Amino acid sequence: MVKKTCKGQINMNVVLSRRLLSLVFVLVTPVSAPAAELPSMRRTGVLPLPRHTSIQEGGFAVDGKFRLSLLGYQDPRLFRCADRFLRRLEQKIGIPLAPEPISDPGEAAFEIHCSAPANPIQGIGDDESYRLEVTSLRAHLSAPTPLGVIRGLETVLQLVELDGQSFFLPLVTIEDQPRFCWRGLLVDVCRHWMPLEVIKRNLDAMAAVKMNVFHWHLSDDQGFRVESKLFPKLHQLGSDGNYYSQDEIRDALAYARDRGIRVIPEFDMPGHTSAWLAAYPELAAAPGPYRIARTWGVFDPCMDPTQEKLYDFLDSFIGEMASLFPDEYFHIGGDEVNGRQWSTSPTILAFKKRRHIKDNRELQAYFNQRLAAILGKYGKRIIGWDEILRPGLAQSVIIQSWRGHAFLADSVRQGYGGILSHGYYLDHMETAAMHYKVDPLGEDAADLSEPEKARILGGEACMWGEFVAPENIDSRIWPRTAAIAERLWSSPEVNDVQDMYRRLERVAQELELLGLTHRTSYRHMLQRISGDQNFGTLKTLADLLQPVGIGTRHRTRKYTSMTPLNRLVDAVSPESATARLFADLVDRALTHQHGLRNELQEIRHLLIRWRDNHEHLSAIANHSFLLTEAIPLSETVQKLSNTGLCALDYVDSGQKPAKAWHTEQLELLDLADKPQAELLPAIVASIKRLVAAASASLQAPNR
Amino acid sequence: MVKKTCKGQINMNVVLSRRLLSLVFVLVTPVSAPAAELPSMRRTGVLPLPRHTSIQEGGFAVDGKFRLSLLGYQDPRLFRCADRFLRRLEQKIGIPLAPEPISDPGEAAFEIHCSAPANPIQGIGDDESYRLEVTSLRAHLSAPTPLGVIRGLETVLQLVELDGQSFFLPLVTIEDQPRFCWRGLLVDVCRHWMPLEVIKRNLDAMAAVKMNVFHWHLSDDQGFRVESKLFPKLHQLGSDGNYYSQDEIRDALAYARDRGIRVIPEFDMPGHTSAWLAAYPELAAAPGPYRIARTWGVFDPCMDPTQEKLYDFLDSFIGEMASLFPDEYFHIGGDEVNGRQWSTSPTILAFKKRRHIKDNRELQAYFNQRLAAILGKYGKRIIGWDEILRPGLAQSVIIQSWRGHAFLADSVRQGYGGILSHGYYLDHMETAAMHYKVDPLGEDAADLSEPEKARILGGEACMWGEFVAPENIDSRIWPRTAAIAERLWSSPEVNDVQDMYRRLERVAQELELLGLTHRTSYRHMLQRISGDQNFGTLKTLADLLQPVGIGTRHRTRKYTSMTPLNRLVDAVSPESATARLFADLVDRALTHQHGLRNELQEIRHLLIRWRDNHEHLSAIANHSFLLTEAIPLSETVQKLSNTGLCALDYVDSGQKPAKAWHTEQLELLDLADKPQAELLPAIVASIKRLVAAASASLQAPNR
Repeated sequence: MVKKTCKGQINMNVVLSRRLLSLVFVLVTPVSAPAAELPSMRRTGVLPLPRHTSIQEGGFAVDGKFRLSLLGYQDPRLFRCADRFLRRLEQKIGIPLAPEPISDPGEAAFEIHCSAPANPIQGIGDDESYRLEVTSLRAHLSAPTPLGVIRGLETVLQLVELDGQSFFLPLVTIEDQPRFCWRGLLVDVCRHWMPLEVIKRNLDAMAAVKMNVFHWHLSDDQGFRVESKLFPKLHQLGSDGNYYSQDEIRDALAYARDRGIRVIPEFDMPGHTSAWLAAYPELAAAPGPYRIARTWGVFDPCMDPTQEKLYDFLDSFIGEMASLFPDEYFHIGGDEVNGRQWSTSPTILAFKKRRHIKDNRELQAYFNQRLAAILGKYGKRIIGWDEILRPGLAQSVIIQSWRGHAFLADSVRQGYGGILSHGYYLDHMETAAMHYKVDPLGEDAADLSEPEKARILGGEACMWGEFVAPENIDSRIWPRTAAIAERLWSSPEVNDVQDMYRRLERVAQELELLGLTHRTSYRHMLQRISGDQNFGTLKTLADLLQPVGIGTRHRTRKYTSMTPLNRLVDAVSPESATARLFADLVDRALTHQHGLRNELQEIRHLLIRWRDNHEHLSAIANHSFLLTEAIPLSETVQKLSNTGLCALDYVDSGQKPAKAWHTEQLELLDLADKPQAELLPAIVASIKRLVAAASASLQAPNR
Repeated sequence: MVKKTCKGQINMNVVLSRRLLSLVFVLVTPVSAPAAELPSMRRTGVLPLPRHTSIQEGGFAVDGKFRLSLLGYQDPRLFRCADRFLRRLEQKIGIPLAPEPISDPGEAAFEIHCSAPANPIQGIGDDESYRLEVTSLRAHLSAPTPLGVIRGLETVLQLVELDGQSFFLPLVTIEDQPRFCWRGLLVDVCRHWMPLEVIKRNLDAMAAVKMNVFHWHLSDDQGFRVESKLFPKLHQLGSDGNYYSQDEIRDALAYARDRGIRVIPEFDMPGHTSAWLAAYPELAAAPGPYRIARTWGVFDPCMDPTQEKLYDFLDSFIGEMASLFPDEYFHIGGDEVNGRQWSTSPTILAFKKRRHIKDNRELQAYFNQRLAAILGKYGKRIIGWDEILRPGLAQSVIIQSWRGHAFLADSVRQGYGGILSHGYYLDHMETAAMHYKVDPLGEDAADLSEPEKARILGGEACMWGEFVAPENIDSRIWPRTAAIAERLWSSPEVNDVQDMYRRLERVAQELELLGLTHRTSYRHMLQRISGDQNFGTLKTLADLLQPVGIGTRHRTRKYTSMTPLNRLVDAVSPESATARLFADLVDRALTHQHGLRNELQEIRHLLIRWRDNHEHLSAIANHSFLLTEAIPLSETVQKLSNTGLCALDYVDSGQKPAKAWHTEQLELLDLADKPQAELLPAIVASIKRLVAAASASLQAPNR
């Protein structure tokens, strides 16, 4: 079926962010789409945005007759990839397709052409480019290597739309390749254990947004998470039984490679090693015994870098791990060594004196040089955190900057590769928009020379594990990480936040189909908290809240790795979509001339609903001990809603409020903006705008 | 922590069905709980209801200190069962527990005592009983064999509640055992292929409601779904590549055994064999070639029971399958032989004449006797559909009655075992309440003698595969099948439909946690149909609809196994909870004296919302071809809502409507009750009641 026009779906995209609002208030009449249309490259749901996109009107029908053919170079990974693509397409459109991809080019209208094999071990700078051309009768995806095919097929899936006639691909020509070659996600499986299925579904999600480095934080004070056949006490005594067998690791590695993702293992040394030392206390800088840490922070236990037996141990251990993990890079951690053990051990003090090592930073540099020699022996290059940056490091080292752009700049000025993680810490509970603005080559990099800039390889989102369990980790990572993925893949000029959120919503939906649980878990957790009651009442509140970041949680109460993460703060999404859409609504109402009346009415409906919800929630609060702490928050939201409604009345009537009212509201707003139960209402700024508008005695719209 | 009172959770349970309504309308003030309390045995969420339950006030706290110990007989299955229990408990309460079950009785407060091993192969009548006693300090589950432990632990999970203080188990003493020993679910994997993961999650769900027979319908005209190493063409040419390897079968069998579930394979013979004959046409009663069927019904292709080579083939094949499937029973199908090939084949006609076989039914009896001899050789007993009931069958045969109670009665009168499936066909899209009323020992069995009654072993829910895909099969099976599970487990006196629905809602929630997709898939499918639009508008409509049964669908349009099952009829739940709760609301409003005003107000809110939804849905209809067919239904719902609102006005005002109005409404109601897009609005009966009340000029409540 040839499509003559795709006008329908173009409008559809443009109005999405507005349509989302009907999630929030059901009784409000829908408003018409805004007149302005976004530029052509923005019209699809593809995220990250491709480098070049052109769209023609029309479509390539996607139905039960959809067949694909593989041309050119072929290998089993490509076949699996094509098969996975077909299964996902089938799931997306709900139409059965032929069970096997077809390699005979005869009939098939969707052709994949791959020129040559990829490297046997994926590395930095491997070609990920692809070209996609869709006409009304034929679609053609071509790529130099399977890596480009893997990326391109994700684009194809994101392009599938439907309209009044059928599912279809818009008629696009896309030429695409990434801006940065290192687009990573760190997952800490130490503070809280994450079973293999959590890793796999997150690899699926990474591939969906074209990320290519999985940084597996495998050892820390709280756990040693890999089976070592040479030193079995590491996983036996260092993991509470929660570790990956080497077979499972190999399984995950194959899974990642099928999706074009490198896996970098991190064994954090010489600090953050309590779990190692629980198994082998003789490696420590002070006498044991040691225990797996149950809390978090920077602890004293540390390896003793002055002992030769440590290097013998590490030589064997790294040899074992080097043969397990194929990637060229090996993450040695190196962060947060407090040096307390080193500064009190007589043998270490004597060693430093003998070798003229003036401080603990130099001692760590000595340790890193020894480590580098061992890793070199096994063909591995080093990546480590900021702190390893010391004179004498091999030029092949990559520095992962968690402390800021300045450290990243330092690294590349000194000739090292650098990747950025500062600004990409997911446990800070920032918005996608905030992360989206952080650019490894942003303003802070303006002073760098071109060769220095070229050494900035990309970035990594970091999911530290203090406040995540398998149940809620997906909701902390996704969909926000997709915004980081776009920052690292797409051109720096791609920075339309509204459009990013429009596409992010689609990604969030797609990821649920892939098996991610960021939305289903939210409902399950709200249901648990609500007990036998319908969770809709709690959801009305929860949709308006945002959890505080790790720092505030840490200060609020004493947490251990056994503390249940089943509270409202653990369920609520890091970013309130409802509050964001409400802010947009308030913005439109207070700045636009047209539609002001509709918008004010919508705002009123929402505020009334939020205000009245408190009574419903209070009525069921005594049914669940997990619900109790939500009540003060609910009351705060009620107060905020009342303030908003009052402000609306002033705006509507054109009367100016008394100054005392204004002052009183500001005090209330300040109070509301303080965490309760480690949560914040996300509508405070919007209510503030309404109060300001009321006080400015904004004129009512024409009736 | 010792709980002094459990008043809280008692009320909580009682008001559940009412609370559910806030799912439906958000803006309505909640009403208070009804005064009446249910008898004590009904207070928990356990489904099926145990034989004897007594509850004391108080609770046994369930928190991070929860530990269990295994006493008495132990085996690996019990350990796996205990471990699975702990993981599910952890998931349910969101609190980390110790990673391993503890076998040291010292500290543990939750003790499991098992007396003796179960049979190596689970069989009919194996003891499934257990006893559970929970005091404020100790809980004790005891059972004669691991089978009882498996059942009892499901009860424990269903007992977990929370209140204002903690999660807890109520202080119960439960003595439990099933009423029927055969509580099965048939899944047809032939008309539509179901991958292993679909089977596994449905085994999980079966275990959750204590079902014990998985009837695996493995061959039919549309597919032969098991790998045969002796006759590989069966799966190679008979399955489109969609079959279970023998390793996968063994995996499923072990999975089922761990959950106390027998697996009965069905190889339907001599009819329903197109897929066999596509591979081995020489077994047919007429010359081939044959093809896998793509449609459904009763087809001509049939085995030729007069050929000795057929019995040689079946001897080898059954030998292979008998060693794969351990259960004592082997299902030979035997249904719907139309006999056309038998009546036209000269050799068969000659054979019948020679042997004095007077008709095709007798010829099938001859075939079955030959089959019985082969099965006997491999130690297997026969189960088959109604049609195999002919003189000369061995007394060990079990008849599965799909045609009605009368056939079941016939079977047991003749000395055979019988199980009921008539009334348990899930593809008829009946309500849980309807299935709940069907009792294998119901009124139709009143004439039977006690020994005859004793031969009625139980029943099986049947999920035939014509209109299910992996995406929607869960929603067709669950939660309705849980009502059948209760009918087959609990005492016949257990028949409080309202209470069943209260507990069914909890089961439905629990099953989602277990990985069933009856609710997540509904949302995904509605999202697909809505395209880029928010699916909330469609959901408002879809929640009010019910799909027609297989018969009507079959007559409405031509279906094949490649027809997409992605339409609204495939997404919508077989039973509308919204409509059921609305009917309850209307019932209360029109029959009770108290609360009439509140209820009428609630009805009005709902009707306004449903009426107004049509405008919203129409506005987005042209965005999706899958949405188009919903619009006439939406209009019907709008009309029904208008009728309801008009009726309410009459009721409110106390005025009597004109007769013409009444007639007009009845016509509209009749029209509305006809399928559109293979769907029916489920609120017609309730609107009819409102119209009747209006015409009866019901007095308005006191203001």
